[in-house]
Amino acid sequence: MTKPVVGKRLFSSLSSLSNKYTKYVPTSGVYPKGYKVGAVSTGVKKNEQLDLSIIKSDSPANAAAVFTTNKFKAAPVQLSKRILDSKQNANINAIVINSGCANAVTGVHGLKDAEKIVEKVDQTIDPNITEHSTICMSTGVIGQRLQMGKILPNIPKLINENLGQDHEAWLKCAKGIMTTDTFPKLVSKQVTVNGQQYVIAGLSKGAGMICPNMATLLGFFVTDAPIAPSALQSILTYAVDRSFNCISVDGDMSTNDTIAALANGAAGGPTIDESTTDSFNLIRDEITDFAQQLSQLVVRDGEGATKFVTIKIKDALTYKDAHQVAKTISNSPLVKTALYGKDANWGRILCAIGYSDVPVNTEKTNVSFVPTDGSAELKLLVNGEPQQIDEERASEILQFKDLEISVELGTGGGADCSFWTCDLSHEYVTINGDYRS
Amino acid sequence: MTKPVVGKRLFSSLSSLSNKYTKYVPTSGVYPKGYKVGAVSTGVKKNEQLDLSIIKSDSPANAAAVFTTNKFKAAPVQLSKRILDSKQNANINAIVINSGCANAVTGVHGLKDAEKIVEKVDQTIDPNITEHSTICMSTGVIGQRLQMGKILPNIPKLINENLGQDHEAWLKCAKGIMTTDTFPKLVSKQVTVNGQQYVIAGLSKGAGMICPNMATLLGFFVTDAPIAPSALQSILTYAVDRSFNCISVDGDMSTNDTIAALANGAAGGPTIDESTTDSFNLIRDEITDFAQQLSQLVVRDGEGATKFVTIKIKDALTYKDAHQVAKTISNSPLVKTALYGKDANWGRILCAIGYSDVPVNTEKTNVSFVPTDGSAELKLLVNGEPQQIDEERASEILQFKDLEISVELGTGGGADCSFWTCDLSHEYVTINGDYRS
Repeated sequence: MTKPVVGKRLFSSLSSLSNKYTKYVPTSGVYPKGYKVGAVSTGVKKNEQLDLSIIKSDSPANAAAVFTTNKFKAAPVQLSKRILDSKQNANINAIVINSGCANAVTGVHGLKDAEKIVEKVDQTIDPNITEHSTICMSTGVIGQRLQMGKILPNIPKLINENLGQDHEAWLKCAKGIMTTDTFPKLVSKQVTVNGQQYVIAGLSKGAGMICPNMATLLGFFVTDAPIAPSALQSILTYAVDRSFNCISVDGDMSTNDTIAALANGAAGGPTIDESTTDSFNLIRDEITDFAQQLSQLVVRDGEGATKFVTIKIKDALTYKDAHQVAKTISNSPLVKTALYGKDANWGRILCAIGYSDVPVNTEKTNVSFVPTDGSAELKLLVNGEPQQIDEERASEILQFKDLEISVELGTGGGADCSFWTCDLSHEYVTINGDYRS
Repeated sequence: MTKPVVGKRLFSSLSSLSNKYTKYVPTSGVYPKGYKVGAVSTGVKKNEQLDLSIIKSDSPANAAAVFTTNKFKAAPVQLSKRILDSKQNANINAIVINSGCANAVTGVHGLKDAEKIVEKVDQTIDPNITEHSTICMSTGVIGQRLQMGKILPNIPKLINENLGQDHEAWLKCAKGIMTTDTFPKLVSKQVTVNGQQYVIAGLSKGAGMICPNMATLLGFFVTDAPIAPSALQSILTYAVDRSFNCISVDGDMSTNDTIAALANGAAGGPTIDESTTDSFNLIRDEITDFAQQLSQLVVRDGEGATKFVTIKIKDALTYKDAHQVAKTISNSPLVKTALYGKDANWGRILCAIGYSDVPVNTEKTNVSFVPTDGSAELKLLVNGEPQQIDEERASEILQFKDLEISVELGTGGGADCSFWTCDLSHEYVTINGDYRS
């Protein structure tokens, strides 16, 4: 169960992976003020892979998070939720993440383990601390206890000796949260809000909504902007609705999914809250854009994925409907295998729209493939009538690694949604089926 | 698009298929009185494969049907629904089924084509007929028009020269509705109801909820029992809820799904309706059992399937909840690939239960593997606590082709559901992804 899965994936398609690494992992970055980050290897993962990461704010930060809605919430999810509630989303010092074990479905013992980790981080940062002030996350195998003997002694070592502020430190931090990920996911950006400059940095991990025998999609952003607690939660929810809630690799929602944000205000400037409409909207849109980038990296790294597919739904009755149709198309094994096979099989797309159980005007439905080189779209269905398809052109478009499927539902409601997904390949079955063989 | 898919599947795993054929195709049967059946090759499918089937009742029969809820209902679905409504589920002479083309998303022309087929069958049976009296079904590629020039002239040929009453005729009829199916699905049975003997025969087809580039699950029963129209509809709905609505290969619901029943009363005896409680319940249960057999054959023939898995959900709050949990587990790519990989990965099962969005008592949830050789079950989760698993025993159980997963949700509601599914293999991806390569 603790086989080094990352190694296996590296082995099975080395060339495509090194391409992805080169393409999606930054070689430099700009990072927010007042944070120190890093990772160490505790021995939970084999071959001295990094498996414990910390993001520490120099001063207490405002915080926000959204968690999985899975009924079997992992211990770190339950605990982090409780801590954020009791601290009213303020005065958080750090985020600690271990990989290799999800601490999910581990009962009361699992909750105590998570609490011990939080306490250790709290005490190492400030021996006089009296309240839990750390958010914790876990990712890895479900149903196993954390190896506390390996993790606990490494926390002081990590905080006291292994934190930094430069690109290398951030990259190590991103590597420490990987499971079946084939590349670390790190994005950073400087933004200007009303003449004030802020920096946002973010990390995510995940390659399946759950990974082989593993749980989790994790993501977080930290910024040096001074965003008020309730504004930060509102921005995070808005951003996640339009990013992490709009991606799918295999449609399985994990027990550990967590997206968190910290804002320590180290860059100075006036506090941003809902009343400062201009700066609030600006930073909300920047963070949303940022969250989309981070979440799309998860799809890029989708288990076995050979295609990155944008599904654009237009003119649904409501956003919820548009989202539901996009998700249904994205999760259809038949659509996904057709994309893998480069088959212009619009019948399967239409079939998925039809069973997604939302209002559709079948006589005003349009479906097109939109090529990513800017050339003309290929109309597949116009006002519910199938088009004579130029198979050569279809095949040309389907050769692209990136593809857009455009669907107009013709309801007159005008609600749109963008969604990102990947295909379903032999490699996916190998990764998830032959895992322990 | 019209590649002989059956041939391709035969080629790719010939030995396992001939096993299935031997195992699941009967070599003899007992058939209901007053029906003549058969099939011909019209040339729509290649290599002279049978592609047009008819079941004709000697006298007008009572009829019932349930149809797909997909928004894009195929032309034959729309038409058959209209015909059954206007005939008030009585006086139906025949069922006609073509394979190779689903006549789905074909607009007004498709509807006219379906109507012409029904008219041709009606006129051939009785030139004086004034009302549509035939149910029609289509299965095959979506978005293509029917090849009427091939189909129409073959209808009189089939009805006048190629119908029979023996086992061979029924087997041909079952072969004529196959698409990616690797074996014909035919079941027949004699039942005794209050001293009166009746016979039920049924056919089904389907290997994916939709097949490669194809649409459809079809099924029908015909009996010589004298069942009143409304009783027949009520029995069919009851039976389908517990059979065809409880199977999944890939979770895609087709545009053509149709299950129909005919009852011509040729065996004599008193009419069975809701008021004749004893005989009504008896024949309802017989037909339900029958429908389960027929629907399970579809799962046995699931595209690329190497495992036949029974999911038993117990103690949900409602039947709908139990059904929802069973369906969610059955459609999880991670559960399906783990089964394929013979991996005792109960974390994935639990994860799927957790996101199925129904009430669960997480502290009273039990999950077990139940071996099909009658030996003791293997407890994976007891009252929400993970068990120390004997990996050798787990691996032993997972070697079986047939497997049962038992899940108790501990809600106190007491609602149960049985569901049948298969695994997700490399072969599934090959069949659906490499279809046109």
